[in-house]
Amino acid sequence: MKLEITVRGPGEGGSYPIEIGPGVLGKIGNRIADLLGKAPEKAAIISNKKVFGLYGEHAAGSIASAGPEVSTHLIGDGERFKNFRTLERTIGFLLEKGLGRTDVIVALGGGVVGDLAGFAASIYLRGVPLIQVPTTLLSMIDSSVGGKTAVNTGFGKNLIGTFYQPRAVLIDPSVLSTLSEREVRAGLFEAVKHAALSGQRLLAATEAMISKLESGEKSGSTETNALFEGLGPGIGAHIEFKAGIVSGDEREKTDRVDARSRKILNFGHTFGHAIEKITGYRSLLHGEAVGHGILFAAALSNNLGLLAEHELKLLYDVVHRVGPLPPIDKIDPREIFATFEYDKKRINDTVQWILLEGIGRPVIVPHTQIPEAAFMSAFKQVTNH
Amino acid sequence: MKLEITVRGPGEGGSYPIEIGPGVLGKIGNRIADLLGKAPEKAAIISNKKVFGLYGEHAAGSIASAGPEVSTHLIGDGERFKNFRTLERTIGFLLEKGLGRTDVIVALGGGVVGDLAGFAASIYLRGVPLIQVPTTLLSMIDSSVGGKTAVNTGFGKNLIGTFYQPRAVLIDPSVLSTLSEREVRAGLFEAVKHAALSGQRLLAATEAMISKLESGEKSGSTETNALFEGLGPGIGAHIEFKAGIVSGDEREKTDRVDARSRKILNFGHTFGHAIEKITGYRSLLHGEAVGHGILFAAALSNNLGLLAEHELKLLYDVVHRVGPLPPIDKIDPREIFATFEYDKKRINDTVQWILLEGIGRPVIVPHTQIPEAAFMSAFKQVTNH
Repeated sequence: MKLEITVRGPGEGGSYPIEIGPGVLGKIGNRIADLLGKAPEKAAIISNKKVFGLYGEHAAGSIASAGPEVSTHLIGDGERFKNFRTLERTIGFLLEKGLGRTDVIVALGGGVVGDLAGFAASIYLRGVPLIQVPTTLLSMIDSSVGGKTAVNTGFGKNLIGTFYQPRAVLIDPSVLSTLSEREVRAGLFEAVKHAALSGQRLLAATEAMISKLESGEKSGSTETNALFEGLGPGIGAHIEFKAGIVSGDEREKTDRVDARSRKILNFGHTFGHAIEKITGYRSLLHGEAVGHGILFAAALSNNLGLLAEHELKLLYDVVHRVGPLPPIDKIDPREIFATFEYDKKRINDTVQWILLEGIGRPVIVPHTQIPEAAFMSAFKQVTNH
Repeated sequence: MKLEITVRGPGEGGSYPIEIGPGVLGKIGNRIADLLGKAPEKAAIISNKKVFGLYGEHAAGSIASAGPEVSTHLIGDGERFKNFRTLERTIGFLLEKGLGRTDVIVALGGGVVGDLAGFAASIYLRGVPLIQVPTTLLSMIDSSVGGKTAVNTGFGKNLIGTFYQPRAVLIDPSVLSTLSEREVRAGLFEAVKHAALSGQRLLAATEAMISKLESGEKSGSTETNALFEGLGPGIGAHIEFKAGIVSGDEREKTDRVDARSRKILNFGHTFGHAIEKITGYRSLLHGEAVGHGILFAAALSNNLGLLAEHELKLLYDVVHRVGPLPPIDKIDPREIFATFEYDKKRINDTVQWILLEGIGRPVIVPHTQIPEAAFMSAFKQVTNH
């Protein structure tokens, strides 16, 4: 399965392929040579210890067989390593290895690796070719697509970064077989986010993915590769949705407030980022924080009279079908609310909530229009579930 | 005088104004409001102590009078401060002040301020509006135009950065009256570089600028403001040349080797960067290093039978008319040559020399085609002059 994402307007290149299928990992080398016109002299793989231990040899072997000299830089595993220090070290590695503008960087890993390697690729020599090889469900359907790169700071997540499109995204769903169940669930929460924004069709495709995984768990299937390969079409449907939004609004224009603005992809993220920050990026996976964020935004939408009761229930059911979320009932909601007040005055004069008027009908509401009572009540609903 | 620079292809915006004229500094506030549609809530001025001491109050006053709350961050003066550490501190300042995506950063200063503030603006919240207010001749005619941002590393100059176009470049030539003679000369060396690449017409405009400044020196004119305001048309001619090259090749495509490739703007810079690096960015101003680089590239072009003797002499005369260059005869040419060998193997597999077949006729020659003897002989010619 091969999708083509086209980013209109600004951005290098304009269009690049997203390839989804078993065996893609073993074809990286050839794909790079095809994409760049010829095999580069050098390739740098940015990954982490765990992913590289599982797939590094295979990926590096594929690249080396096409010609380039391959070097590897491993970064720490987890959001707390996605920072300025890791970026500077990664840049130092690229300088040390002498990568040139006609060489290539391969990001092999999940969202942290993709965001950080993408940022490094965008500023090293003012931009060198980048290939995204996402290895988690979350990065396959979300973070590897759309060209956002970033590091975190003490002030919050993803505040520093660039818009930088890769030359290709290569996705091998069979690598998901080595992902922990918790990581798979984290990705599915992001999938539910897309479905809530897109509508019934993507929601059905998402439920099909959930069913497939449930059947695998029940049967204790040893055919795990076949199981995960079967997720390919679902992954493709999610990428098509995201690519459609990104194509129309690559840079997330500040003045757009329509239902196709890139901002809508922040559904579940305003609350999600807040609880990630409060818990120090340690106890919640990003996807889990988004899972809570979906529940919260849906409850808030319902409280404000935007989302009907049966659609709220539908979303709660899907989120709960994905699996359990780590409890957040020890968090003080007033502390979260204060975060937005703080954010409002500081980084974002305009914290904007993405709420729902229905499944597939997002609406952008400024934080200033959210009554504290509706907020507190939504928090109670989320923690009681 | 108002020029419009249009960058085709990738890059935010596509087109932005460059305004040149006395009094522009006092109009920054209004211009920002015009450019952004309305006055932003916050404006951050990035500058250095010296420039801010001279023009900061005037600039900040103009901005504040249009509405925004103005804050200021001062960085160290000199190439050695254009590094990752200063970038991180500047980003920290922007976070601290809570600049948002609809706010604005104003770079008030020379090339170091412009490159660093531009880089910060391009990665802070993945890009916030930037206004360049260059205060040196070099930054007016060269570094503020074209969207290259950068920091230096131990591996060399400008290896880390972005392509990021400002919303406007506002140039008030009268601020040049407080620039040291040495700084003015440094800018004129870059002007000679443009002229050598562009042809007789820009060379004549450059010589007119030199004559004007010589006449000012001789008369010990107290009318310095009028004198420097008179440089406006010359500055405009240089910007038009550079904007023309940048428009056709914003990202400096690696595979282009034609005479309109953005690479040609590196004329004088391959040698220039090498001697800056060897002298630790301390004894030479960037423009002075380029002055030496022009002489060197011209001599090398002549040695290789590309540039006729009378055109070589013409270039030497113009460079010397600009003024004295700090001696570099203590540098060992073998050390410089080794730098390129090193660079060749490391960062740039393809160090490319910009040489001349004539005034206005640049040609790109790979380092591998330069015999060591021709290199050493060119070095002798430069140091004996």
